[in-house]
Parts: sequence; C-alpha cells; structure tokens
Amino acid sequence: MMSRIQFSAMIDTFYQILLKNAVPDLSAKLCARVIAQSTFDGVFTHGIQRFPGLIESLANGSINPNAELHQMSAFGAFESWDGNLGIGIVNATKCTDRAINLAVRNGIGCVSLRNNTHWLRAGSYGWQAVEKGYGLICWTNTIPNMPAWGALEPSVGNNPMVIAVPHPDHPIVLDIAMSQFSMGSLHAHRDSGQKLPVPGGFDKKGNLTTDAARIIDSNRALPMGFWKGSGMAFALDVLVVMLTGGHSSADYARMGGEHGVSQAFLAFDPSHFPAENSAEQEIDRIVDAFHMAAPEHGENPPRFPGEGALSRRAENIKLGIEVDDALWKSILALLSPHP
Amino acid sequence: MMSRIQFSAMIDTFYQILLKNAVPDLSAKLCARVIAQSTFDGVFTHGIQRFPGLIESLANGSINPNAELHQMSAFGAFESWDGNLGIGIVNATKCTDRAINLAVRNGIGCVSLRNNTHWLRAGSYGWQAVEKGYGLICWTNTIPNMPAWGALEPSVGNNPMVIAVPHPDHPIVLDIAMSQFSMGSLHAHRDSGQKLPVPGGFDKKGNLTTDAARIIDSNRALPMGFWKGSGMAFALDVLVVMLTGGHSSADYARMGGEHGVSQAFLAFDPSHFPAENSAEQEIDRIVDAFHMAAPEHGENPPRFPGEGALSRRAENIKLGIEVDDALWKSILALLSPHP
Repeated sequence: MMSRIQFSAMIDTFYQILLKNAVPDLSAKLCARVIAQSTFDGVFTHGIQRFPGLIESLANGSINPNAELHQMSAFGAFESWDGNLGIGIVNATKCTDRAINLAVRNGIGCVSLRNNTHWLRAGSYGWQAVEKGYGLICWTNTIPNMPAWGALEPSVGNNPMVIAVPHPDHPIVLDIAMSQFSMGSLHAHRDSGQKLPVPGGFDKKGNLTTDAARIIDSNRALPMGFWKGSGMAFALDVLVVMLTGGHSSADYARMGGEHGVSQAFLAFDPSHFPAENSAEQEIDRIVDAFHMAAPEHGENPPRFPGEGALSRRAENIKLGIEVDDALWKSILALLSPHP
Repeated sequence: MMSRIQFSAMIDTFYQILLKNAVPDLSAKLCARVIAQSTFDGVFTHGIQRFPGLIESLANGSINPNAELHQMSAFGAFESWDGNLGIGIVNATKCTDRAINLAVRNGIGCVSLRNNTHWLRAGSYGWQAVEKGYGLICWTNTIPNMPAWGALEPSVGNNPMVIAVPHPDHPIVLDIAMSQFSMGSLHAHRDSGQKLPVPGGFDKKGNLTTDAARIIDSNRALPMGFWKGSGMAFALDVLVVMLTGGHSSADYARMGGEHGVSQAFLAFDPSHFPAENSAEQEIDRIVDAFHMAAPEHGENPPRFPGEGALSRRAENIKLGIEVDDALWKSILALLSPHP
C-alpha cells in the first residue's frame, strides 16, 4: 500500500528524528530538507530510502553530528577542508557554498573535502548551485564496487559526478555514477525480477547480462560505456585524491568501508563570463534544438539532465509523494523513544 | 606496405609542409611536434591521418594561420579568449598554458576559448599539462554526431573530454569522447569488415548492432553508457557555451559545420594542495591496487588511462613508427610545389 506524504510533513518528520539523534538544529533542518527534496525529485534510492541508514550511522558513532569542518589549506581560488566524519550532507552543502563564494571573488572556485561521510544524492549540490545562479562540477569517490575494464574483481569506485548549469527556466543538472546501474538499481531489479533495460554487468561465466541477480552474484557490475566509464572512474579518483590529500577507493578496500570519502566542488560564476546576457538565450536555443530531434518513442521524447526531476518535483509538491506504507512506518518508528 | 618513420623525420616533414602553407615558424614547430607526438602515441586517427585535412583547411582559408588569440574577459582565476579561427592546436596549447599560469597564481585556473578550429587530439593538452606537473580537465564541443538517448537523429556532439593528473612515473591522461566509438573508428571497422567489440549504435530497424556499416547507414551512433553519455554530452555543451559565450553543437548543425568550436581548460596546481608530498605515493598505491585486481585475460591486464600511450610512445620513438606507405607518400606529396 502507498500513501501520499506532503513535502512539509516529510521535512518535519526527518527534522524531529534528527534532533532526537543529537543533530544540532541547523544541521537537522538542512539534512531534513535535502533528503525530502531528493525524495520529491523522485530519487528515492538516495533520499528517503537512505534515511534509516543515516540514523543508524549517527547512533553507532560512525557519523559525528557535531564535527566541524577544518580548513587544511587555502590559496587564491582554492581551499581544502577536512570533514572530520561529520554529516555528509552538511559538509558537502557548506563546501558547495564555499566554492560559490570563491567563484564570486575569482570567477571560478575549487573546494576539496576529505574525510566526509556519504553525501547521499550527488545532484543535491548541483541543484543547490543552480538555484543560486552558479554552475558546478562536483564528484566523490566510493569503495571499489565494479571491476575496471578487463578485471574480474571490483577495483574502481563508481564515483558519482555532477555537472550543473544555471538557467532561470530550465537548469541543467547531470548526476551520474560511472557504473551503468547503481547497486540500488541492481538490487531493485533483482527483487522485482525485472530485466535491466540494457546489460548491466557480467554473469559468472563472463557473459554480459540483463539479469541483475547474476550480476550481484558475480560481483561484476559494468562501467558505463565499458572501458570509458572505467577509465573515467579511475581518473576522478586520482584527481580527487590529489586535490584533497584524502583517501582513495583503494584505501576503502583496505579499510573495509568508506571511512572518510574524498570529494571536489568546482563552482563557476556566470556574471564574469563573456556575453553573459545572451547565455540564457543560447541555452534556450540548445534546449529547443534538443527537443526538436525526432523521438524514438513518441510518447517518451528525449529529456535533458534535470528536466525530469524538475517536472516530478512540481507534481509531487502539489499532490504529495507516494511512499510505501511499510517504509513510512519504519521512518515514523524512529520518532519513538529508543528501546 | 608499411615503413618505419623516425620521430624527428616526421616532425621535420610536417614542419616543412606547414611553413610552405604560410604557417608562422613557431606555430609550425608546435603543430608539427604535437601531431607527430599523437601519431607516436598510437593515435593515428587524430595524428597523421588528420594532417592532410589540416593543410586543406589552411589552403581553403577555413583556418587562418596568422590569427591571434583575443582576450574577451579576465577576472581572478578565469579568462575567456577568442581563437578567431586560428590553428586549433596552437590556440589550445596557448590556452592550456594560460590556465596553468592562472593555476600557479590561484591554485586553479580556468580558460575558456571560443571560435577555435579543430584541436585534433584532446589528450595532447592533458599530456602538455602533466609534463609540466599540473592537473587538467578540458573539453570541446562538436557538431551533433549522435542522437541523444531516445532520439532518432543526431542532436548532441560527442564532445571529447580530458582528465589529466601529473605523476613523475605514471601520469594519468584520460581522453574520451561521449560516443561509444569515434566516427573514425566506425569507418575503420566498416572498411576492414571487422565487427565492433561491443554495440556501437543502432541499425535502421532500431536494433543495437556491432556492424559499423549499419550504424553509419542509420546515422545512429551510440552514446557511451546509453543515456549517461548522452546526458554528459549535453551538459558539457551547455557549460562550455556558458563559459565562452561561443557556439553550441546546435549552432554547428544550423551552420552546417564546426565553424568556431567552444572549449574549456581547467588547470590545477598540485603545489597548493594539502599533503602534496604524499600525493605521489598515494597515486602509486592506487596504481598498484589497480594492477593487482585479477585480470579477465591474463595476457591483457587492465590499463589505466594514459598507460598504453606512454609505453607505445617509448617503443615507437626507439624504433620509429610503422606508417602505411601510401599515407606517407601522400604526406610527402604536400612538400612538392602546388600544382
């Protein structure tokens, strides 16, 4: 059974639970809003579905709700920070704001962040930037969760990356991991018995397959574009390690988990670019041309990155969002006193 | 028939031909070296094979060998330039150096470039940066040469992108287009009758195929990772248009060609990063872990981006590189007086 939950009700529920788990007021407000927003954008896997795990990490001490960001270095348009295993969303939101501040003063700004905890939905920081009128590239590394192209065992992370470009009517927010499918999506397809729309990995015999159960069995998820996503995942990991001095995917494999991830945030201030008054119109023309190409399926025309989230958000905020009753009940249970 | 050409002989041949085509001495030296280097790195498709086309573009005036870069704006760590349809390699090399200079003064630097001509091999600028000890992200837009995911006709460019990280022993240089295969590779497979190793596009019936001839017929090359490469190509185009105020892929479609492409160069100076003394060792550990994963094919272990080029370069510079006699003859013919 599904019920419709209102946006404000979801935020308030998350907020109360976070307060109960010793999260300071401002951080609780921020986290609650970001996780509810991801859910209302349709990204359940990195929204409401991750909320119980976040509470568990706060309870077992692997996330410190009172940790403060600590500046490691600052030079010109670049700053490097240590997240001290604080709340991933809070640290990443602050670092996005720092990168924007640097961009305002320098045209572009770069902030690197080591020892952060899971930032949940990468796209959140892209939306944060475009809503303030700035461009953003950001990415994180992860535990090795797919074999590099040509390897049999996981050796690179799927290292999600965001490219975001502001526009008053149709901001662009690309949010992609370097694997063809997220682990969450593989598990969902396995559980529902549905085939993947395209091959998502190898079975134990080394054949490409659309059967998520076989991919999970073999531990051989596929990089997007085969060797291309593999190479990109590797390059993003090495670059973020250089920028942060923090942990690599290889370190997480040794440590047995993502204990302090490394992330980078590059912000762009459009007000310092040439022809800034016409950039909006040029983006309008790009979007128009994109929509004019003949669609493969008439009922399902191509959408640019961010287009779907924005329309889902508008609808869901109006009507409330459908949430599985069992899931919502498990969230509400977190409001009760600890046993 | 193939003959081995020495590195210095190839540079000198290109240089003499460029001089004959009214390219100024310094630009001719630079271009000759970059194109020979790409060839010796094994990237024929964006090296020697493009040289006759470059000479033709100089002869027909679509590239102006005497064009000067013109600064459009400068603020903090950001500069924007107009390439005025000068030689693509010369403009891109200069803008990479400008971005590095900005990074030295600001930790990071960003240079955007509009109205450039084809820069040939994207990776050239990554190698340029890492050989000087700097990191680089750069990309270009292109004419729409593949359908966006869900479209039937070309609507996005394959927009090649580079991520480069310096290291004294094993620099990382990723150089990928957003299509699963380049047009050059599709044509080579069609001509040789060889199947693609993985599907590279659709046939006219809308089925994925490894038959390059059918893909060329249908004009439906595949983005890497299906919707992922499609979204990324779109986002890179929009961001570079915002940074440059220059042309978009949609503009090239309207104009009927890549008349003045838009490019971006982001440089990183590792000397301002935290723990800079250990970054090299951390990259060593990443590379070691990458190589330790069990390979799918023992004789062909996984390689990280740039690893192959570096080993090919060493071997080819020692022995000379094998070039098809007919191709080399056609190059030498460009040395003769014009008819």
